[in-house]
Amino acid sequence: MKIAHFETGGRTALGVVVGDGVIDLAKVGCDWPDMLALIADADALAKISAATKGVAPHHALSDVRLLAPLRPGKYMAIGMNYAKHVAEMGHAARPKYQYWFNKQTTCINGPRDPIVTGVTERLDYEVELGVVIGRAAKGVSRADALGHVFGYLVVNDVSARDWQKHSPTFTMGKSFDTHGPIGPWIVTADEIPDPQALDLRCLVNGEVRQESNTDGMLFGVAEQIEYLSTAFTLEPGDLLATGTPEGVGAGMNLPRFLQPGDVVRCEIDGIGAIENRVTV
Amino acid sequence: MKIAHFETGGRTALGVVVGDGVIDLAKVGCDWPDMLALIADADALAKISAATKGVAPHHALSDVRLLAPLRPGKYMAIGMNYAKHVAEMGHAARPKYQYWFNKQTTCINGPRDPIVTGVTERLDYEVELGVVIGRAAKGVSRADALGHVFGYLVVNDVSARDWQKHSPTFTMGKSFDTHGPIGPWIVTADEIPDPQALDLRCLVNGEVRQESNTDGMLFGVAEQIEYLSTAFTLEPGDLLATGTPEGVGAGMNLPRFLQPGDVVRCEIDGIGAIENRVTV
Repeated sequence: MKIAHFETGGRTALGVVVGDGVIDLAKVGCDWPDMLALIADADALAKISAATKGVAPHHALSDVRLLAPLRPGKYMAIGMNYAKHVAEMGHAARPKYQYWFNKQTTCINGPRDPIVTGVTERLDYEVELGVVIGRAAKGVSRADALGHVFGYLVVNDVSARDWQKHSPTFTMGKSFDTHGPIGPWIVTADEIPDPQALDLRCLVNGEVRQESNTDGMLFGVAEQIEYLSTAFTLEPGDLLATGTPEGVGAGMNLPRFLQPGDVVRCEIDGIGAIENRVTV
Repeated sequence: MKIAHFETGGRTALGVVVGDGVIDLAKVGCDWPDMLALIADADALAKISAATKGVAPHHALSDVRLLAPLRPGKYMAIGMNYAKHVAEMGHAARPKYQYWFNKQTTCINGPRDPIVTGVTERLDYEVELGVVIGRAAKGVSRADALGHVFGYLVVNDVSARDWQKHSPTFTMGKSFDTHGPIGPWIVTADEIPDPQALDLRCLVNGEVRQESNTDGMLFGVAEQIEYLSTAFTLEPGDLLATGTPEGVGAGMNLPRFLQPGDVVRCEIDGIGAIENRVTV
C-alpha cells in the first residue's frame, strides 16, 4: 500500500495511491489527523484495507500536491554505509561502529518542493532508502527488527559540505531548512519483502550521478534498528536514512556541487521518485 | 515566573511556582494542553499574569510530582564550550566552530526521576544551562538572539562515554533513554537578565564535582542562537544545552563514573535544582 500526504482544494489529507489516482481517506471514514496518528494506530492498515476496497480514486495524482509524508519525531541518518562511498569521501575502511548523526526535523521538505541553498557554497545530494518505524523498538534483535518497520520512502539527504565540516558531528551541514526532501509517499513494509535488494539512483538534470543497490549497505536496515535500539527507543514515526552510495558531488574529482536551477531526482525502484529544484 | 509541569491526583497539569506552592493553571482558566502549546502562544505570559494575580497556590510543591517541563521538538547540545572542560577532555584548544550534537528527544526525563544506566559501563554527568526557545529564530543576529528565548532550566547532559566514542558524532552515547533529565521548571527569560552570569554546580552524593559560572562559556547563548539560526530554524519549544564546565567523571585522573545508587544533583542559582538517582 502507498500512503500519501497531500494537499487538495486548500486542505491537507491522507490518501492511498492507486495507479494514477488517490483515494482520499477522509472520504471513506478514515480520519487520522496526520500520518503520525495513522502510524501509531496498530489497526490502521486493516481499517484502510476495509474502507478502500473497491473504492475508485477521488483525485488524479496530477491534481494534488504531494507533501512530505510525515514530520518524524526523530530523523536520524547513517554515514559511511556503502563501501565505495566511504572510499570516495577519503575514509580508509568500513567503520567499526555505525556512524549515526541527526538531521533536524525542521529540515523536512516535500517530494516536489524547492531545495533552498541558504548560506552554503557546497550543496550536495545523497539518495537514500528511508525507513519509517511503525512499532516502538527498544532492545530489538536483528531477527525481529524488520517487524518494527511501518514502511519505506525515498530520502534525499541534502548536505551543505562546507558547514558539515564545521564539527566532526556533521550537525550544521545536514539540516538546513528544506534540506530534507522525503516521499513521494510511504510504501508499507508488506510490499518490500527485502529492503536490501532495491535499486536506487540519483539524477541531476537528467544525468545519472548515483546508481546502486541497497545490497551494498555495510550495515543493513535490521542491523541499524538493532544497534540504535540497544541505546534508546525508536518510536512510531521516527525516520532513519540508511546511507548513500557512491557518486555524490563532493566525492568527484573535481567536486560538482548543486547550483540554483538544478533539478535533483532521487528514485528507488518499487517505491517511487522525488524531484526537487534548487533555488536561492 | 517559574512555570512547572507536574502530576497531581492522577492528572498532569501546568502551573506557576510561588514560594513552596504551585498555582494550577487549569484552575484559573488557563488551559493549554501542554508546555509546547503554552510557549507557542505569544500572549501566554500576559494571560498567566492576569489569571494568577492574588491567587493562592493550590498545591504544596511537596505534594506534586514535578515532570520534565517539556518534550522539545529538537534537543541540541554544544560540546567543548568551557575552556577547562575542553582541556580535561584532552582537546587542544577552543574549537574554531561551535561543536553541536543532538540528544534524541526520547531521552527526556523528569527532574526527580531515575537515570537508568542501560548498556553503558561509563556513565557520566554534565550540568548545563538549558535554553528554551520561545519565538521562531532564523537568521537572527547575536544582538537580537536573547529576545527569542522563552526561558531557562537546568540540564543534566547524562553521557555514556563508551558509546559516545563509537563515532565522532557522539550520537549513540548522548541519548540513552532517561539520560535527559531537565527542570525543575522553566524560569522565564525576564527573570534572567544575563544568562552569562549564573553559578552552576553538580554534586554526586553530596560531593561537589562541578562548580563554575556560565561566564566561562566559549560561545555564549546569544552566539549559539545566532550560529544555529544561520543554518536552520529554531522553533518555539526547542531546547539548547549550552555546554558543561570542567569536573566531569571522564575528565578525572582516574575517571570516576556514576554507579547504581549514586544521586546526582545539578543546580543553577536563580533557576533551581534537579536530582536524579542512578539505577540499573
